[in-house]
Amino acid sequence: MIFTTPKDAAIAFYRAFESRNIEVMMATWADDEDIVCIHPGGPRLVGYEAVRSSWEQIFAGDTKLAFTLDEIISIDTVGLALQSAIEHVTVGNDPKPRGAAIASNVFMRTPSGWRMVLHHASPAAASLVPASSAPLH
Amino acid sequence: MIFTTPKDAAIAFYRAFESRNIEVMMATWADDEDIVCIHPGGPRLVGYEAVRSSWEQIFAGDTKLAFTLDEIISIDTVGLALQSAIEHVTVGNDPKPRGAAIASNVFMRTPSGWRMVLHHASPAAASLVPASSAPLH
Repeated sequence: MIFTTPKDAAIAFYRAFESRNIEVMMATWADDEDIVCIHPGGPRLVGYEAVRSSWEQIFAGDTKLAFTLDEIISIDTVGLALQSAIEHVTVGNDPKPRGAAIASNVFMRTPSGWRMVLHHASPAAASLVPASSAPLH
Repeated sequence: MIFTTPKDAAIAFYRAFESRNIEVMMATWADDEDIVCIHPGGPRLVGYEAVRSSWEQIFAGDTKLAFTLDEIISIDTVGLALQSAIEHVTVGNDPKPRGAAIASNVFMRTPSGWRMVLHHASPAAASLVPASSAPLH
């Protein structure tokens, strides 16, 4: 699978997530020791094997998720591209969103086309908390 | 202030954060409607004014923070650069880290040098929770 634009890689990433297809999911990632994946509330996972293993765990569950991306911001350059979005997540056949996450995705142009090198997602539910009362910053 | 490398911009960002200098802090950011800042547990802030206002709020407090970056991963290209790191945060004169955050920083080469376009930080304390039990993914 060769993605000729960062957007194509992003679309494939979310389709693979929804269809729980581990091979397609990992084809959207760079095969690299330095890829980074942070699932909402989870630790930072680094490297192809750790990232693959986390998706295998997630896909092993029965939960069928669907994503709608909102408020997408993209910055594309020749070698690297950033996508920021709000992910609205629905579960199973329930049309009501179960929640939302803030996602930062970074894609890199590789000899095999555009591939994901960073997926950082965090719960957006806490958006009601003003930044000034956040625990760390 | 002109930062000739993404690393220079990153160092200036954390120094401005520690010294609570709003002018220096905002000089590390691109003056752009599409910049994105997510403080730990906070909402996604978009655009120069929203981002500046959040730092003003944070710097208005009395809390003196210091950062040590750990496990840094960098991907540099000609136009855009990614930095992923664990931020260990100490407060005041207490040498014991108050906590840690996972940070994804993206820098863009602009006519005014390298500037930050994304800062996405989320609490790392939850790293004890396995990804499979995370609420959204």
